[in-house]
Amino acid sequence: MSLKKILVCLDADPQPSVFDGVVAVDAGVDVLFRHGAVTTAQVRDLVYGAIFTRGPQELKHTAVFVGGSDVTAAEALCKAAHEAFFGPMRVSVMLDANGANTTAAAAVLAVRRHVPLSGAIVTVLAGTGAVGRRVVRLLAREGARVRVASRKLTHAEGTCDKVSRVVPGADLTAWTNENAMAVEGAQAVIACGPPGVELLPKGYLAQAVGLQAAIDLNAVPAHGLGDVAPTDKATHHGEIVCYGAIGVGGTKMKIHKAAIAKLFTRNDLVLDAEEIYAIGKEL
Amino acid sequence: MSLKKILVCLDADPQPSVFDGVVAVDAGVDVLFRHGAVTTAQVRDLVYGAIFTRGPQELKHTAVFVGGSDVTAAEALCKAAHEAFFGPMRVSVMLDANGANTTAAAAVLAVRRHVPLSGAIVTVLAGTGAVGRRVVRLLAREGARVRVASRKLTHAEGTCDKVSRVVPGADLTAWTNENAMAVEGAQAVIACGPPGVELLPKGYLAQAVGLQAAIDLNAVPAHGLGDVAPTDKATHHGEIVCYGAIGVGGTKMKIHKAAIAKLFTRNDLVLDAEEIYAIGKEL
Amino acid sequence: MSLKKILVCLDADPQPSVFDGVVAVDAGVDVLFRHGAVTTAQVRDLVYGAIFTRGPQELKHTAVFVGGSDVTAAEALCKAAHEAFFGPMRVSVMLDANGANTTAAAAVLAVRRHVPLSGAIVTVLAGTGAVGRRVVRLLAREGARVRVASRKLTHAEGTCDKVSRVVPGADLTAWTNENAMAVEGAQAVIACGPPGVELLPKGYLAQAVGLQAAIDLNAVPAHGLGDVAPTDKATHHGEIVCYGAIGVGGTKMKIHKAAIAKLFTRNDLVLDAEEIYAIGKEL
Repeated sequence: MSLKKILVCLDADPQPSVFDGVVAVDAGVDVLFRHGAVTTAQVRDLVYGAIFTRGPQELKHTAVFVGGSDVTAAEALCKAAHEAFFGPMRVSVMLDANGANTTAAAAVLAVRRHVPLSGAIVTVLAGTGAVGRRVVRLLAREGARVRVASRKLTHAEGTCDKVSRVVPGADLTAWTNENAMAVEGAQAVIACGPPGVELLPKGYLAQAVGLQAAIDLNAVPAHGLGDVAPTDKATHHGEIVCYGAIGVGGTKMKIHKAAIAKLFTRNDLVLDAEEIYAIGKEL
Repeated sequence: MSLKKILVCLDADPQPSVFDGVVAVDAGVDVLFRHGAVTTAQVRDLVYGAIFTRGPQELKHTAVFVGGSDVTAAEALCKAAHEAFFGPMRVSVMLDANGANTTAAAAVLAVRRHVPLSGAIVTVLAGTGAVGRRVVRLLAREGARVRVASRKLTHAEGTCDKVSRVVPGADLTAWTNENAMAVEGAQAVIACGPPGVELLPKGYLAQAVGLQAAIDLNAVPAHGLGDVAPTDKATHHGEIVCYGAIGVGGTKMKIHKAAIAKLFTRNDLVLDAEEIYAIGKEL
Repeated sequence: MSLKKILVCLDADPQPSVFDGVVAVDAGVDVLFRHGAVTTAQVRDLVYGAIFTRGPQELKHTAVFVGGSDVTAAEALCKAAHEAFFGPMRVSVMLDANGANTTAAAAVLAVRRHVPLSGAIVTVLAGTGAVGRRVVRLLAREGARVRVASRKLTHAEGTCDKVSRVVPGADLTAWTNENAMAVEGAQAVIACGPPGVELLPKGYLAQAVGLQAAIDLNAVPAHGLGDVAPTDKATHHGEIVCYGAIGVGGTKMKIHKAAIAKLFTRNDLVLDAEEIYAIGKEL
């Protein structure tokens, strides 16, 4: 008899995420241990329970998922989980708080379907948040020339700085969201702003010479890109192929499920932005 | 492969109900997401997790159950869940905090087995609590002439008022529990008082001319009706057929399980008192 | 269709134990209801949910496990669970907070493989903690002459006193850990000290004339017995057969799973130290 696949879900929010739970069930997980209001101090004992209960050959049937709405808190939980591992005593871990990794992967994959990324100029509006930073990282690793735009130039510069350290040789420049020139000459634009905040008004994209693809990850009006509807999915508006949040959502869900399934193939996987993007490329 | 049936259990109590969990498992639910200490502010995100994870044709495989011991708190959670739905993006919802709906349905069905409800005079003692109000509502919809009794006449009047608004043309009159006349001339009496509180002493019912059925929902001595034992189940005491809390319990459990099973037949059901009673009638 | 096996896990810690959860899944439990931060005041309603939902013949398919890191808190939860039962309305209960019962059983069984317990002198170092007290109890019931050692003689005397009351005629004497004589003349020694506290330094055991078996339940250096490695499993160091914490762990896990499985054979089992040890003897 094969062991049941157990996913330990760690969530800093008071209530563990129903979203992540349903996706895990649909990805084939047999048993969920859902934990809410998890603090970093509690992680060690929870992880010990995962690594000290099954034999070394069986540990791939247990995995940890770190979710919740707060990406920073989730990163701290993830770090605490890794600190509890030692030698072969570990289980695979996936981080997808607020859907940041799966969303970033789906957004970059949407662009990639239409624009060869290597050498392309891609503008990431609101590129300093949890999703934006991951989009920038993924684009940089693909060899794109990334314009990181934020409300404040110093924030954009900070993100360029951080990503440069993990992606040596990355071609990154800092811009402000409001600077219309940020999209000028770019082949693609990805808007990662928060719900309800318009970053570029309707009618703007048609004037951007050479723009081939536009992605807006904001599903709640006002939309980030006034020219893109949430349901756009490889929809052409003039010369530009567009994806809205819902249009990207199908790919995001497929990536999420594939990543969960992959967790149970080994006991030493760490699924963060790059690994999750790689899973998306193989779909 | 069919999707697993997921029930999201929302509970305002610190610990989610074991009772509701076991019944859900026995009703065929595959996976339970049990949430305790749920606040109305948390409901939207939990519901979003239920409605944004499966396709429109698949949403009937996810449902929400609102339980817990506090019926008022549960009603607020229920309302918050409905406010999070929009258009076809919804899942079926059942409310049965404190077992109020299934208990009320079972009590009225017990009377209905022996007394045609339309036009019958039925007295509901302690008719202003969570169970009592539902019993009054169900009886009123069946066309019974309902005497709503409470410790305070003003409370009884308040319940008559509220039920009249949702059941236009209902024949309701307010009484006090202590008024022995409340049962005089009634064909049935249902006692909905709290555990340990006697409403009518032993020996009383035999004197009530014309009384055919007596139901007592209080399982803990002193019983609500001194003449009815908790295990009475269609038991005759003289002319009167009697049901105690345990005698009604079997029907209550069957209704509860049937209602849970029904949740997963559509994605837009709202199972409150009337719908749950209708399910009971079909058993 | 057979009913699903439901295990209600009650845990005084803020997060319910992942360890106990995984073991339960691997022991064949179908559904876990995992509760954290459980207070004694909450136990009654949780237990009512377990005993009032299935028929008398079906109650053996529901059970309660009391775990967590705090053994004293767990004992209080256990007591509250038993107080909620009445007559045949009960489910089987297992107590294994902090692994105390399964660890104590595995330790005594390790000695028993090599030393006939009846009449044997066995020293229990740090014999006054949750594990130590249980080891003393099990040894006393097997007819061993037990030396209960603690940092403070009064603590050791207290444990002798308590165990004497539950095991009439037990042969118990109080010692201090530091007293090298505590091991002198003993056939076996079991060290039950906390992680990182050395009780007898390396080189000591070889000088103890007649010592046949040494068990150290502390896996974290400094070890309780300097001469025993955590991975020792019936390993001979000179004349002495040794078991470390990891060496005992395999038996402990087998006992834990067998005990969980046994819970579902009846609805009236109480699995505490003695019953869990008896299960271990039959493996």
